[in-house]
Amino acid sequence: MEHKGFTAWFTGLPCCGKTTIAEKVAEILKNKGYKVEYLDGDIVRKNLTSDLGFSKEDRDENLKRITFVAKLLTRNNVAVLATFVSPYQKRRDIIRRDIGDFVEIYVRCPVEECIKRDVKGMYKKALSGKIKNFTGVQDPYEEPKKPDLIVDTDSETLDESVEKVLDKLDELGYIEK
Amino acid sequence: MEHKGFTAWFTGLPCCGKTTIAEKVAEILKNKGYKVEYLDGDIVRKNLTSDLGFSKEDRDENLKRITFVAKLLTRNNVAVLATFVSPYQKRRDIIRRDIGDFVEIYVRCPVEECIKRDVKGMYKKALSGKIKNFTGVQDPYEEPKKPDLIVDTDSETLDESVEKVLDKLDELGYIEK
Repeated sequence: MEHKGFTAWFTGLPCCGKTTIAEKVAEILKNKGYKVEYLDGDIVRKNLTSDLGFSKEDRDENLKRITFVAKLLTRNNVAVLATFVSPYQKRRDIIRRDIGDFVEIYVRCPVEECIKRDVKGMYKKALSGKIKNFTGVQDPYEEPKKPDLIVDTDSETLDESVEKVLDKLDELGYIEK
Repeated sequence: MEHKGFTAWFTGLPCCGKTTIAEKVAEILKNKGYKVEYLDGDIVRKNLTSDLGFSKEDRDENLKRITFVAKLLTRNNVAVLATFVSPYQKRRDIIRRDIGDFVEIYVRCPVEECIKRDVKGMYKKALSGKIKNFTGVQDPYEEPKKPDLIVDTDSETLDESVEKVLDKLDELGYIEK
C-alpha cells in the first residue's frame, strides 16, 4: 500500500511504555500492508552511534543522526515509528522541522511508576549512582509543550493507548484505520 | 512507481567519475518516477559521520553506518545510488551481504588520469603531503574482484557509462529501461 510517509515519535521517560505501544502500532500497520520501520535506542546505538554516550552533547548527536535516517525514510513513504527518550524540547523541535511529517507522541507516566517498573534495572543503577546522566534521575526530562498526542500509560490500557495513536494518525491523514 | 529497491554502489578512486555518472542515473530514474536517494561522502559525513576521519578504522565505521541507512532504504523499495571510494574488497563484500539487493559498479580510471582531473585539488594536497591516508596516493585501492559492472571513464563518454549502468539495472530486474 503506497501512502504518505511519516515519523511517529514516541518521547517519554525510560520505562514509560514507549516501546510496548510502538511495537503494537508497528504490528498493526504492517498487517495492514504499510511499509514500517521501527527505530529505537538499541538498534540505532548498535548501527549508527556506537561511539556515543549519554551526555547532552552525545544525546544531541545521536538524535541528529537518527533524524537524518528518519527523514530519508519518511520522504520515501515509510511509516517510521521511533522511540527515544529525547528529553529536550529544543531538539524535538529541530527534529520536527527537519522531518516535516512528524507526529510527537508524549508517552506520559509519573517517574515513581517508571521506577517501579524498571524493566532493565536501569533506574536502580542510576539511583545507586552506578549510571550517570540517567533521565528522570540525574538528568531532566522536559515535557512536550505541544505534543500531537498524549497517552497516559499509568491509567490507560495498552489497547487504549494504541487506539489513540491510530486515531491520531488517521485524523492527520497518514493512515486509514 | 513501486518497484524492488536496490543499492547501486559506485566504487573507484577519487575523481574517477563516480558522482557524475550516479547523478545522471539518479536524474533519469527520478524522471521515470522511481523513488531515488543519492548518498555520497559529503552528505553522509555531514549528517552521520562528522566525527570520523579517513583512517582504515574510520572508513570502515563510516561505511558501516552508510550500510545501515542504505539497507533500510533498499528494503523499502528505494533506488539508492551510493558513491564512495570504498577501497577495501572485504568491506564491499560485507556491504553486499548486508544490503542484499546490491549492485557493485566499478568506475575504473587510471590514477594518472584521476590526478590530471583533480577536481577538488585533493590529489595535489595528498602528493605534497598536506593530506594523509588519501586513496591512490598513500592508501591502496583494491580493485573489485567480481563487480557487477565495470565502466571505464577514460575511454567511454558519460552517456555510454550511464547507458551501461541502466542496462545492467534493467538486466538485473531492478528497473525497466
